[in-house]
Amino acid sequence: MNKANKSVKTANKAASAKPGEAKPALHAIKGGKPVLVKSPPKPAAKPAAVKPIPLKAAPPAADDAPVIALNLPMAKLTPAMSSYFKKCQDKLGFIPNVLVAYAFDMTKLETFVAMYNDLMLGESGLSKLEREMIAVAVSSQNRCYYCLTAHGAAVRQYSRDPLLGEHMVMNYRVARLNKRQRAMLDFAVKLTASPWSVEEADRERLRRGGFSDRDIWDISAVAGFFNMSNRVASATDMRPNTVYHGQAR
Amino acid sequence: MNKANKSVKTANKAASAKPGEAKPALHAIKGGKPVLVKSPPKPAAKPAAVKPIPLKAAPPAADDAPVIALNLPMAKLTPAMSSYFKKCQDKLGFIPNVLVAYAFDMTKLETFVAMYNDLMLGESGLSKLEREMIAVAVSSQNRCYYCLTAHGAAVRQYSRDPLLGEHMVMNYRVARLNKRQRAMLDFAVKLTASPWSVEEADRERLRRGGFSDRDIWDISAVAGFFNMSNRVASATDMRPNTVYHGQAR
Amino acid sequence: MNKANKSVKTANKAASAKPGEAKPALHAIKGGKPVLVKSPPKPAAKPAAVKPIPLKAAPPAADDAPVIALNLPMAKLTPAMSSYFKKCQDKLGFIPNVLVAYAFDMTKLETFVAMYNDLMLGESGLSKLEREMIAVAVSSQNRCYYCLTAHGAAVRQYSRDPLLGEHMVMNYRVARLNKRQRAMLDFAVKLTASPWSVEEADRERLRRGGFSDRDIWDISAVAGFFNMSNRVASATDMRPNTVYHGQAR
Amino acid sequence: MNKANKSVKTANKAASAKPGEAKPALHAIKGGKPVLVKSPPKPAAKPAAVKPIPLKAAPPAADDAPVIALNLPMAKLTPAMSSYFKKCQDKLGFIPNVLVAYAFDMTKLETFVAMYNDLMLGESGLSKLEREMIAVAVSSQNRCYYCLTAHGAAVRQYSRDPLLGEHMVMNYRVARLNKRQRAMLDFAVKLTASPWSVEEADRERLRRGGFSDRDIWDISAVAGFFNMSNRVASATDMRPNTVYHGQAR
Amino acid sequence: MNKANKSVKTANKAASAKPGEAKPALHAIKGGKPVLVKSPPKPAAKPAAVKPIPLKAAPPAADDAPVIALNLPMAKLTPAMSSYFKKCQDKLGFIPNVLVAYAFDMTKLETFVAMYNDLMLGESGLSKLEREMIAVAVSSQNRCYYCLTAHGAAVRQYSRDPLLGEHMVMNYRVARLNKRQRAMLDFAVKLTASPWSVEEADRERLRRGGFSDRDIWDISAVAGFFNMSNRVASATDMRPNTVYHGQAR
Amino acid sequence: MNKANKSVKTANKAASAKPGEAKPALHAIKGGKPVLVKSPPKPAAKPAAVKPIPLKAAPPAADDAPVIALNLPMAKLTPAMSSYFKKCQDKLGFIPNVLVAYAFDMTKLETFVAMYNDLMLGESGLSKLEREMIAVAVSSQNRCYYCLTAHGAAVRQYSRDPLLGEHMVMNYRVARLNKRQRAMLDFAVKLTASPWSVEEADRERLRRGGFSDRDIWDISAVAGFFNMSNRVASATDMRPNTVYHGQAR
Repeated sequence: MNKANKSVKTANKAASAKPGEAKPALHAIKGGKPVLVKSPPKPAAKPAAVKPIPLKAAPPAADDAPVIALNLPMAKLTPAMSSYFKKCQDKLGFIPNVLVAYAFDMTKLETFVAMYNDLMLGESGLSKLEREMIAVAVSSQNRCYYCLTAHGAAVRQYSRDPLLGEHMVMNYRVARLNKRQRAMLDFAVKLTASPWSVEEADRERLRRGGFSDRDIWDISAVAGFFNMSNRVASATDMRPNTVYHGQAR
Repeated sequence: MNKANKSVKTANKAASAKPGEAKPALHAIKGGKPVLVKSPPKPAAKPAAVKPIPLKAAPPAADDAPVIALNLPMAKLTPAMSSYFKKCQDKLGFIPNVLVAYAFDMTKLETFVAMYNDLMLGESGLSKLEREMIAVAVSSQNRCYYCLTAHGAAVRQYSRDPLLGEHMVMNYRVARLNKRQRAMLDFAVKLTASPWSVEEADRERLRRGGFSDRDIWDISAVAGFFNMSNRVASATDMRPNTVYHGQAR
Repeated sequence: MNKANKSVKTANKAASAKPGEAKPALHAIKGGKPVLVKSPPKPAAKPAAVKPIPLKAAPPAADDAPVIALNLPMAKLTPAMSSYFKKCQDKLGFIPNVLVAYAFDMTKLETFVAMYNDLMLGESGLSKLEREMIAVAVSSQNRCYYCLTAHGAAVRQYSRDPLLGEHMVMNYRVARLNKRQRAMLDFAVKLTASPWSVEEADRERLRRGGFSDRDIWDISAVAGFFNMSNRVASATDMRPNTVYHGQAR
Repeated sequence: MNKANKSVKTANKAASAKPGEAKPALHAIKGGKPVLVKSPPKPAAKPAAVKPIPLKAAPPAADDAPVIALNLPMAKLTPAMSSYFKKCQDKLGFIPNVLVAYAFDMTKLETFVAMYNDLMLGESGLSKLEREMIAVAVSSQNRCYYCLTAHGAAVRQYSRDPLLGEHMVMNYRVARLNKRQRAMLDFAVKLTASPWSVEEADRERLRRGGFSDRDIWDISAVAGFFNMSNRVASATDMRPNTVYHGQAR
Repeated sequence: MNKANKSVKTANKAASAKPGEAKPALHAIKGGKPVLVKSPPKPAAKPAAVKPIPLKAAPPAADDAPVIALNLPMAKLTPAMSSYFKKCQDKLGFIPNVLVAYAFDMTKLETFVAMYNDLMLGESGLSKLEREMIAVAVSSQNRCYYCLTAHGAAVRQYSRDPLLGEHMVMNYRVARLNKRQRAMLDFAVKLTASPWSVEEADRERLRRGGFSDRDIWDISAVAGFFNMSNRVASATDMRPNTVYHGQAR
Repeated sequence: MNKANKSVKTANKAASAKPGEAKPALHAIKGGKPVLVKSPPKPAAKPAAVKPIPLKAAPPAADDAPVIALNLPMAKLTPAMSSYFKKCQDKLGFIPNVLVAYAFDMTKLETFVAMYNDLMLGESGLSKLEREMIAVAVSSQNRCYYCLTAHGAAVRQYSRDPLLGEHMVMNYRVARLNKRQRAMLDFAVKLTASPWSVEEADRERLRRGGFSDRDIWDISAVAGFFNMSNRVASATDMRPNTVYHGQAR
């Protein structure tokens, strides 16, 4: 792990050259696809135990704890993923732990990143904030610590409304939402709690709320994605980077 | 419908002309391995409405119905996806409807296919049958018509035991499983029903059942994936190809 | 399974000496009451352990397993029940395992058969298919392996629509039903899941769907009956005859 | 169905020729034994609307209300049922409303009575009180007004312990039961709430509590029966005779 | 607990010297506040209508059992509480066990009594009966033996309708209520079962039923209070005075 | 509400004249009883450590919104409550909204405050932090926005561990607790989710965790209290002071 950490630290140094650069979380990285990296970064020399990659500055003690409760040594990053991690470090100042967790296998990491970035950052009739709101409302239904923390922070950041983030975490029904967004979250949470009961009447309610059929797909796909991620996180006791807790309060 | 079908068929015919980049294969392809496609197929000429792609032989009437309840015209297949569809057609005799459903957007289709094939067909300490058993037990908990049908057929095929498929669909607890497989399904179903309650004791039970930490990841990831797919399918009223119903009975 | 199927067919051929006679399972036996046996069949010579009664031809291996997980030796059949079993064998080619399970006690067997046949085969404003649809939708809510198997086959047979059987087993909401039948199943499943919450408004919905008060009784009684049978079957780990699985696919 | 009825009548006549033949009695009959009825009572002259049959003495006002919320005129009682009703009237002072409710159809009434009496009054390793305790604990889980009232009274009567009846109605876990009875009720209530989850370990717990396999059948069958009756009662808004409320307080 | 018991018994003896007028339990004590009682209340002058079993006479054996399953010796009553207990004994003929349970700590007893009496006996747009109906419907949802017993008796007493008490205990939906009261109980039970789902539409339904905003507070506060009391009672296995069982039947 | 608001604002102005010592919210006021305050309490002498945002300065916009969704004008504060509010303002810098909500009726306010302060601040074998942990874990089960916000802040303050507060809010099972505290929260949450199922075995588990019977009472009483408060808050759409959100992050 040491060596891997070193290379990341190096990247951190380089990254911090330009002060003031906005540091949205994982979801804000442009393009998002782990495609062609021109100059491959030096690969880590050997597999590391799954531990958090520290922030440049001294990290809170809690970040020394393992990222997940499974002993899965980190694999050698592919050039694409190495570049992607570097980008995270440069822009966010840290590597989201979910990426560290998946990094024991490059195919798994790449497919996760590709799907995540398409869903959460790709083109959609839903704003990025709306997608994050779905993420958190679903994660609240599933009581997923990792996703509530990381995406709760994202809702606070995108909305610049710390309360909205708390509403999504605690009970989305208390948020003062317009009809469209309320319908969106009602659909996503019903789909989470009792997927078998979702029917045409539910889709019609979304259409009446102004959503296109493509929007309905996106709502469903984001809700579905977090029903997956919530379970991977809960199954592995995944721990969020502590830095999220203080973001955009 | 005719036109859409024609364009896909054309694409399929043309497809194998140019050597192709390796792509994961979908589970139902015989043997299950993502074989190299020699030549990229010509792209489909224009977007088609989302309707089922017929079997070569006359399809059952029900397959004329839309694949999903959303009006999302099929996009032009990328060469990789065109080749992949052709492979499906060649080996299975049909294109699984989930692929048709995702084909309105090539990025979504490709990321779905990549994740699916890695999880269900890639290397793992879990056999392909075990992964399909998880898929069906999870889909039973979520009462997902599409996944129960398509993956119920897969369990029947892989196991050559039609009853096992029915057990997974109806109530996995009635199957005569060894301790290992029972522990695996108990974990997957608990993770599905109450993900917040999964803890170290649950992982320990799997370890005592002989599973490695990597296996635990795979169980979780497959269970998570179907918690996603079940919801996308239920949200869109996705319909399975009718051919599944009769397979391996 | 080919062989098993063949042997059943042979038995069926023998049984169906009179062409054109309908051959649905247990539920199709005319009259249904175990009374008036013209020629009493020979009584079984001595109590047997609860094991399946073999088809005339060699049964599939799985049918050698015990019918239930309780050790309850079969009693001597009364003349009425002996005649009834013979009729089952003649017309169906097998004795449904539920009858074998109840046969440790003739009073229990006779009262079960009498109630079953009245409810499922007697006069009613509900068609036999509709009653079977209720049976399966209720059994799906209760995840009862025995009843889903035996009555799923009945839905396939009566409807000549294999998909309808699967819909009932997996999630009745995906079936394309007319309003009447949907209202009927919604009532039956609500009555199953939360009987305390059924009220006049629910009955009114059935009346608006065209059901008479007598029909409402019948829907309730069939739903109630399967809430009983599902529990007897689950409590005793009752196993369906394997022949059901292949019927009417 | 005429023919069937006729044959039943014939059978009944024949049957009653032989003295000593057990006939089903309803639980509330003192002593609980199905005593011989010497002379068949006169059949009711014409169909009646479903209203309670008054006690000999002036009934409480509430008993003028319809027995169920369905308009199902009472049919002409068969001699057997007429005799049975008379017996109820003689011994209990009233006809239990559930009998009135079923009396729109003699086959349904007779099969219900036959099954009820076998289960609740027939030979069993379970005492009659224990069977009533199961009835009430199950009905409490299902919040069934009719059955809680009628069988709550039965528990009070059989046990001569009014508190025990209240415990069964309100929350069987508060009763001070011996291990055997607690295991019995735990099984019955689990079978009621989540029948799909009952497995060999649950049966083993009963066996360790001293129950035979036949006892396990009886526990299951009684629990099953009330899962049926609870639903018929709730579906039809069945009202208990008011007299139950004051019994054995 | 010996000492505590002694003091209670002594109080009972003193109190029961004068035969007591029947009075509803705790809830009926005027004013309700446990504050300074200037002069001992006049003893009731004549025998009870509802025949409470006086503590003077031999109590039923069950009342010798501990009130709760925790070993918490009764504290010395403050003058206010001593006076209050005396009032209970005089008017009711017994000390409600919940008071005995709280009497290990005078602050806890006094705050409980103060809140209880304000809520259940203070001024409100809800009648005392309505508040007791809420108490029982909530306690039924939570299956709380203590509160169902004590407040079921109160509903019977206030309403002079024994059946109404049973309806509240068993399933409030079977009671023939006017729209206002039904809306009130629907709100209280929804608030009990899924408080997170209560929203403006639910309050609007109450307003349409004729309730003021102050009434809505009171419905909520009473429902809330019994959600507290139910849990304290269940957590401590609190046992009601046996006298309740026979009251107002 | 204008008038009420005015009086509260006035109180705030007066109160904030003296800079306040940092104190946890409501729960920190010593003694807690709303009894006659002879002389105004001494104002706190120095600036707050936790930097509450004083009401004197422009409050966040959200705090202009009504505290609850019911139109209940604030009553004239009794001297005791006036003094208590002043103490809150002095020590916390604000009046917790729950107090404002109850202030439409002085008896209700006083009894609420008395019970709250005894439970949360009075003597107990449970530390104040432990009581707040119970408050938040219960409120999380009930998804109560008000209580999660106000008491989540309290957990952060008492523990000086912001993560612990988040754990309690999101899923208490992810917190790294010692056995004692885990048992305590398991009990409180089980008591919240299914109070009817709490039995002697649950109390025994607490005793084995080192809790006395008095401690068990306190755990139960705190859990019960928040089951009440959660419901009052949800029923009335109670909104927390925005200042909580930023506290002790």
